[in-house]
Amino acid sequence: MGSSEDDGITAATAPTPPAITGGLSCISLVLRSLLFAATGASIAVMVTGKQTKEIISLPPFPPLVMVAKFDYSPSFIRYFVAATSVACVYSLVSAVGTAVWLRRPNSASGTLSFLLAFFDALILGIVASATGAGVSIAYVGLRGNSHVGWIKICNMFDKFCWHIGGSLVLSGAATVILVLLVMLSTFSLHRRSRR
Amino acid sequence: MGSSEDDGITAATAPTPPAITGGLSCISLVLRSLLFAATGASIAVMVTGKQTKEIISLPPFPPLVMVAKFDYSPSFIRYFVAATSVACVYSLVSAVGTAVWLRRPNSASGTLSFLLAFFDALILGIVASATGAGVSIAYVGLRGNSHVGWIKICNMFDKFCWHIGGSLVLSGAATVILVLLVMLSTFSLHRRSRR
Repeated sequence: MGSSEDDGITAATAPTPPAITGGLSCISLVLRSLLFAATGASIAVMVTGKQTKEIISLPPFPPLVMVAKFDYSPSFIRYFVAATSVACVYSLVSAVGTAVWLRRPNSASGTLSFLLAFFDALILGIVASATGAGVSIAYVGLRGNSHVGWIKICNMFDKFCWHIGGSLVLSGAATVILVLLVMLSTFSLHRRSRR
Repeated sequence: MGSSEDDGITAATAPTPPAITGGLSCISLVLRSLLFAATGASIAVMVTGKQTKEIISLPPFPPLVMVAKFDYSPSFIRYFVAATSVACVYSLVSAVGTAVWLRRPNSASGTLSFLLAFFDALILGIVASATGAGVSIAYVGLRGNSHVGWIKICNMFDKFCWHIGGSLVLSGAATVILVLLVMLSTFSLHRRSRR
């Protein structure tokens, strides 16, 4: 009887997480690694996007050289790279935190779960805003806007636009990964509240 | 002694939230009301943005009439309005949910806290991406991009641009409110896990 009472109190107050919490942390670790890969690749593909185009003119005039590269959109694409870099660094730091927590699950895991849930959501907001900014500029580059006379540029700079598109697909993937991470980290907090 | 044990077990398992949880829910309700106001106003200011400009030409030609309005950017600004509308509806639904929970705090409050924490973060992502898309297009309208020949339009359509700017400031405010809501809802979940 005494043993039964002890078991009941232990189940209500014990800080040791069950096996399923470790499983969730493993999934979280995998997702954070994928986030690191997606954001890192997105930055690399974006900053290497450069295309030079020669427009042939009649002699004696020399050919006109036009260059498209990522830092010719100084505000948005740089914001995109800065925001994706923040997410990339965060994915690394949070993956290390999750890995340490997997080895020592009882050390301040409640605070860590709270911080992960909050910062996952914050980074989701940052990456989503950067992706929104990038996609909107890329869409104008692809389609133009005849109402205000903004011409499409992707018919001239196809290789450059493929870089931008690839980078945006990767940041879109990072956004999806972050939604899954938010779901996982809030669910982990929820599970802790039910123990 | 028996009374003390009973108290201990009650403290570990009781679903009734303490006064501070009610206080957090009140703050949450105020923030959700502000979110509703900010997103509703942002949509109203955006969709009413229209400016007609007459460019005087020499007789016998009639003056050239140019119109700027929000649906002349069919993809991005429409996405902006759609995303902000989703946030507006969500703020209303979640405010009602929080108000119901304040009246009946013991009814499925754990699941509600989890859903609020997850959907607050998801809506933060949606509003942030819409704000990012809107700001990037508005910035090109304000400054232009000489590298690709996109002219600035805000020197011609100043009133229209003030509408766009006002709407984006309001959606920026909605983003900040959502960050505070995410902080509050994850902290509420965290507090529940420590009880």
